[in-house]
Amino acid sequence: MNETLSLLMNHRSIRKYKNTPVSEEMLHTIIAAGQMASTSSNVQGYSVISITDMDKRKRLAALAGNQNYILECPVFLVWCGDLRRLKEAAKPYLEDSLSYEDTTENFIVATVDASLAAQNAAIAAESLGLGVVYIGGIRNHIAEAAEELMLPEFVYPLFGMCMGFPDQEPILRPRLPLQSVLHTNVYDEKQAAEGVASYDVMSSDYLKKRSNGKQAAPWSELMSKRLAEPVRLHMKSFLQERGFMKR
Amino acid sequence: MNETLSLLMNHRSIRKYKNTPVSEEMLHTIIAAGQMASTSSNVQGYSVISITDMDKRKRLAALAGNQNYILECPVFLVWCGDLRRLKEAAKPYLEDSLSYEDTTENFIVATVDASLAAQNAAIAAESLGLGVVYIGGIRNHIAEAAEELMLPEFVYPLFGMCMGFPDQEPILRPRLPLQSVLHTNVYDEKQAAEGVASYDVMSSDYLKKRSNGKQAAPWSELMSKRLAEPVRLHMKSFLQERGFMKR
Repeated sequence: MNETLSLLMNHRSIRKYKNTPVSEEMLHTIIAAGQMASTSSNVQGYSVISITDMDKRKRLAALAGNQNYILECPVFLVWCGDLRRLKEAAKPYLEDSLSYEDTTENFIVATVDASLAAQNAAIAAESLGLGVVYIGGIRNHIAEAAEELMLPEFVYPLFGMCMGFPDQEPILRPRLPLQSVLHTNVYDEKQAAEGVASYDVMSSDYLKKRSNGKQAAPWSELMSKRLAEPVRLHMKSFLQERGFMKR
Repeated sequence: MNETLSLLMNHRSIRKYKNTPVSEEMLHTIIAAGQMASTSSNVQGYSVISITDMDKRKRLAALAGNQNYILECPVFLVWCGDLRRLKEAAKPYLEDSLSYEDTTENFIVATVDASLAAQNAAIAAESLGLGVVYIGGIRNHIAEAAEELMLPEFVYPLFGMCMGFPDQEPILRPRLPLQSVLHTNVYDEKQAAEGVASYDVMSSDYLKKRSNGKQAAPWSELMSKRLAEPVRLHMKSFLQERGFMKR
C-alpha cells in the first residue's frame, strides 16, 4: 500500500461541498495532470470547459437533470471529445478540406482520450483534498448543452464533473468481485455470473445502509430497470449531425 | 505538489521491461484499484482479460501490429467494453429476452467505464513502480482479436495494456498548452489555435530529441497525416455486428 493506492481505493463520489473556493492555480494543476494521461498517437482528442458564469451554470444544470450540486460546487467542468482542434491544425497540410465523413474509430479515440484525462484530473483533485462527481446527465439534452457551450462541429460534451472540498463522507460503494471483472486468456461467462450472485447480496446490503433501509434492490435488478428503459436515444443522431461516426 | 501529483506529472509510456515478474497479488491490487474508479450508475461496463498463454499472446501481438513489447511484458491485459454481464444478470428480472437493439448511449457508457477503470489501474501500477503502455492496435483486427479472446456478443476489445518493471526512462512528451485544452464558459477556437502554434514548435523539438535529429514534424503535420489516412474503418460494422450502437 502507498499514498496513491490508498487514495484510489478510497474513492467515493462527492455531491456536497464546502464553500471554500478552489483557486485557479489549483484548477490549472489539476487539468495539467489530466493532460499527462496517455493519449492515442498523441491526438489529445479532448477539451475541458470550466463553467464560471452562474447563469450558464443554471441553464446547464437544468439540462442535466437539475442536480443541486452542479450549482453548489466551486468548480463545474464539462469534458468534451474534441476532433476539431486537430482538424483545424491539420488544414494547412491537407489538400482537401474537412468535408470527409469521420470514423467510428476516431470517435472512440476522442472518447477514450477524454476519459483518461478526466480520470487523471479526478485523481489529481482528490490528492489535493477535493472531491468530484461525474455528471453523465450532460448528455440528457446534449444538443442544447452543446449550443450553450458554443461547441463547433466535431466537439461533443461527454460528461460534466463537479469539484470542490467535500462536506460529506459517504460510505464506500462496493464493486463487483474481481472474478466478475478479471478473466484469464478468454472471457469466462460462468465465472462472471458467480461473482454477480455474491455481488447482488453485497450491493443490496450497501443500498440498505446508504438509504437507512429504504432501498435494497440487488445490482441485477437495478440493471434490469436500466435496460428496460433505455435513455438518451438521441445520441446517435446527435453525434452524426456533429460529424462523428459517419462511417 | 504531493506524491500522487508527482506520479501523474511524470507519466511516460514504457515499452521496454525488466524480466522481473509481476505477482498475481500485485495484479489483483491493480485491478481492484481500477474498479474503484467512477462508473455510470454503477453499471461497471467493462472486463479485463489477462493474457498469460504465450501462444495466445503471440497471435494477439501479430493482430495488434507485432510490437515486441506485447510479447516481452510480464503482464498483458486487454480491456473490454462489456454490456454482456449486466444483460445476463438482468435476464431473470426481464420479461423480454435480450433481443432489442442496444444504444449508442450504452456503448459510450461501456467505453467510458472501461477507460476510467483502466486509467486508475495504470496509475495504481505506476505507484507500485511499474510502467505501462496502452495498445490501441488491438483494434487493428478487432474481429479476430475478439474471437481469440472468445468474447460473447456485447463485449468488445477497447485497448490492450502492457505492464512491467521499466527498463528504460524515456523523456517526457510535452502536451498541448493549457490554453488549447481548457476553456471558460464557451469553446474558444482562437485560443485553442494559438496554443497549437506554440505546441508545434515544442512537439517538433521533442521529436528531434527523441529521434536524435531524425524526426522533427510538428504536431499539426502529424495530425494531418493521420486524418489523410483514416484507420480501422471496420469499427462501425464490427460493433454493430456485436450488438452495439444499433440505434
